Amino acid sequence: MQNGSLKEAGDGYRPPFDADEFRRLGHAMVDFIAEYQQSLGTGSLPVRSQASPGYLAPRLPGAAPEQPEGLPAILEDVQRHILPGMTHWQSPSFFAWFPANTSPPSLVADMLCSALGVIGFSWVSSPAATELEAIVLDWLGQLLRLPPSFLSPQGGTGVIQSTASEATLVALLSAKARAMEGRPEEDALKLCAYCSDQAHSSVRKACMVAGITRLRALPTSPEHLHALQPEAIEAAVQADLAEGLLPCFACATIGTTNSCAVDPLPAIGQLALRHSLWLHVDAAYAGTFGLLPELSSHFEGLELADSFDTNPHKGLLTNFDCSTMWFREGRARWARQALSLTPEYLRHHANDLDYKDLQVPLGRKFRALKLWFVMRMYGAEGLRAYLRNRLECQRVFEELLAADSRFLVAEGTAPRFGLVCFRLAGATRQQSEVVLEAVNASGTAFLVGTLMDGQHTIRMAIGSATVLPRHIREAWAAIQAAADEVLGPVATSNGAENGLAH
Amino acid sequence: MQNGSLKEAGDGYRPPFDADEFRRLGHAMVDFIAEYQQSLGTGSLPVRSQASPGYLAPRLPGAAPEQPEGLPAILEDVQRHILPGMTHWQSPSFFAWFPANTSPPSLVADMLCSALGVIGFSWVSSPAATELEAIVLDWLGQLLRLPPSFLSPQGGTGVIQSTASEATLVALLSAKARAMEGRPEEDALKLCAYCSDQAHSSVRKACMVAGITRLRALPTSPEHLHALQPEAIEAAVQADLAEGLLPCFACATIGTTNSCAVDPLPAIGQLALRHSLWLHVDAAYAGTFGLLPELSSHFEGLELADSFDTNPHKGLLTNFDCSTMWFREGRARWARQALSLTPEYLRHHANDLDYKDLQVPLGRKFRALKLWFVMRMYGAEGLRAYLRNRLECQRVFEELLAADSRFLVAEGTAPRFGLVCFRLAGATRQQSEVVLEAVNASGTAFLVGTLMDGQHTIRMAIGSATVLPRHIREAWAAIQAAADEVLGPVATSNGAENGLAH
Repeated sequence: MQNGSLKEAGDGYRPPFDADEFRRLGHAMVDFIAEYQQSLGTGSLPVRSQASPGYLAPRLPGAAPEQPEGLPAILEDVQRHILPGMTHWQSPSFFAWFPANTSPPSLVADMLCSALGVIGFSWVSSPAATELEAIVLDWLGQLLRLPPSFLSPQGGTGVIQSTASEATLVALLSAKARAMEGRPEEDALKLCAYCSDQAHSSVRKACMVAGITRLRALPTSPEHLHALQPEAIEAAVQADLAEGLLPCFACATIGTTNSCAVDPLPAIGQLALRHSLWLHVDAAYAGTFGLLPELSSHFEGLELADSFDTNPHKGLLTNFDCSTMWFREGRARWARQALSLTPEYLRHHANDLDYKDLQVPLGRKFRALKLWFVMRMYGAEGLRAYLRNRLECQRVFEELLAADSRFLVAEGTAPRFGLVCFRLAGATRQQSEVVLEAVNASGTAFLVGTLMDGQHTIRMAIGSATVLPRHIREAWAAIQAAADEVLGPVATSNGAENGLAH
Repeated sequence: MQNGSLKEAGDGYRPPFDADEFRRLGHAMVDFIAEYQQSLGTGSLPVRSQASPGYLAPRLPGAAPEQPEGLPAILEDVQRHILPGMTHWQSPSFFAWFPANTSPPSLVADMLCSALGVIGFSWVSSPAATELEAIVLDWLGQLLRLPPSFLSPQGGTGVIQSTASEATLVALLSAKARAMEGRPEEDALKLCAYCSDQAHSSVRKACMVAGITRLRALPTSPEHLHALQPEAIEAAVQADLAEGLLPCFACATIGTTNSCAVDPLPAIGQLALRHSLWLHVDAAYAGTFGLLPELSSHFEGLELADSFDTNPHKGLLTNFDCSTMWFREGRARWARQALSLTPEYLRHHANDLDYKDLQVPLGRKFRALKLWFVMRMYGAEGLRAYLRNRLECQRVFEELLAADSRFLVAEGTAPRFGLVCFRLAGATRQQSEVVLEAVNASGTAFLVGTLMDGQHTIRMAIGSATVLPRHIREAWAAIQAAADEVLGPVATSNGAENGLAH
């Protein structure tokens, strides 16, 4: 080390940005964001980016600058080079995959979270971060009508994971820890897990990560709306037991990615109990609809689950990342057994409160702020109204679909939770894909397709924070126009032709 | 579903927050944050929270409100109930663990990231998110003087992970995939991994998650400044091979958590090559010092590593989460082999660019924006000046320490990368802990202790974005005052008594 040059650098050092500078930059960014938000839904930005792979590198320098640049130059580049490469998830006309909601309350809470900049791995590293998380998970658990055994007064444990993928992995590791207790190491190779062929890819990924090679992704059928059948699990478990294997984990889904299928929890829960399977319920997308009493039937049997996860960062106005997971009374100790480690520099007098032992990474943000702001600034009533608006949009779409004989709701699916799976009647896979691509290339709306029972299926996933029935009608007009191109105009004369079904 | 009530809710629905509302809330939050930042370093907030476990629940309602509340009410609660429970990581007098930098450029970039709200799991989900990430990882890799084989022009691959823990896990899974290729499943139980007893706890946690039970955490010694000795790995590998086991992974650390020990990469790299071990280099904290040519000796031999990780969210002014990982040419394919899965709804024409296959979760944010803003708004020169300021602060602390005979730099450690490990000469563990607690309870500064070679060691980890030599002197005065209480005033007469060593 050259002390001379260090001394020079250090003694003369003035941080280039102070709080006043943050104030100036922050206000500029707020305005930039507000203008961006205003432009969404005006049609000025195609919902799906129309960029081609490799578009960006030729537009940017090959190296970082030596000298500082100002915010205006960077924002100009954002406008000119980044926005054209964005797929606008916050557009009211984004209907692809599942939504990734943001909202002003969540955005300002996230600003605070970033500025406080604490790493809440342990209680002492910021007591408020740990304690508020436990409190808001109880708040949200109550709003979602979770069984009391998932809430802290009855010994349940709530924790914010980054993603549902990580929640599934943590549940699987907990299941493994419980199943392996007292067993020889080599039994780890005998562990078996169960889910449906509609379960999210993260279940398989969790098994790959945890080294569990026997995941039984059990076939589902259109007759049962692609719900996992308990009989199928029972048969698979029996076959595995007969081979001397160790069934340990089942993942049931409320709201599968393809079609929002709902696995029957009461029967699966009984089966899990009988065979000592850890039952994880993955309700990543649909779980937040637990706020609506009129949808409570989908959540029946949840009291039999060992763990449950849903993503407020999908459908509850809280920006990524915020995946809320609950362990039923007593179950969190298996996660701790699987994941707990406390080196000396992390020891303190309240280690039993630490969230680091309920997740894979060590670091974690103060994400509870986002949920706290969202629940308070919307109020439970506002959250329910928001979810019901999405269901109303779904109803509008179903009505439009029903009025055009060229389309039909995909067999083996039931529109729910804002998702409608549909097909072009009698069209080939290629024709269907061409129609979908035409809609997406138009920039008016963005939807994605999937395969169900070998048939191409288009998913209308309604969930933007700003979606209203008029955006549904606009998207429908684009879909009809694309179908006109590929299939010819609609043959019926019920008024659907002009895209105005009511 | 009750269509009547849905219709009512949906048709009448007006989202309670629009872009103008965001503008209003955003500006208010910017001002709140700027005021918070201004209060840091004034001594008005104790650096380590003085709250007791359970302090928060009695201060908050037991349930979410039914009706919406306004931002002012919430900010008042933040002020009254949350801030007293915060440990202020952004205080210039935060010297605990390692830092978690934020900076105004990073904060405003993060605002934009949250507002764009894209989930960049695949290229098509937002091309700019994927492409800018590849570009800025090359920029940063160049600044850090990484070997060219880690950068994209020579086939290397950069990816932003959430945490270094996840980077280590991904590296371990890649190592496992490579070692297991063509082998029977049961060989998974024979896999062995190697690191030093100073390696981060996340190495053990990664093994727990991946089901690798044979992690050899090899002893280090003060004579070698707690660096992992190649001879120790060689002996362990030989012993494992003799037992028919499968050595597959070594983790070397540049800048261990306890004392910033640096494992000798050239020798470990040769050994890893000889035994086909995947060599991961965990430089979570210290890696960003690669920006300084005067510290390049610590990074020699890096070209022999298979993967490398460092956290701009620790020491490079980029707020959490932003852990940058690079794979050497050709190595990323093993990560893809371990983690790749593409369900139908994620298929598109540019799947080979997808980042989802280089990480454990599926979801991911547009984190590249933060790095892009930071590199541009500081410039390479500004980043180097910032790092040199921390080294200058370290020098100041070493000088103060040397002038007070009651203290000494901990044996077996070398102050570097802004970290100074020190002890109270001749004090018992309890006395040392009492001094440390007195400093932390004073609120002036926050440091944590660790155990090295059985001795209590206090870590002065200098890394706040706003730290200046005067904060070091203030902290030193608090440390001396605490020592006065416990050990009595200093016996020497070199002027250190009054805390002014120069």
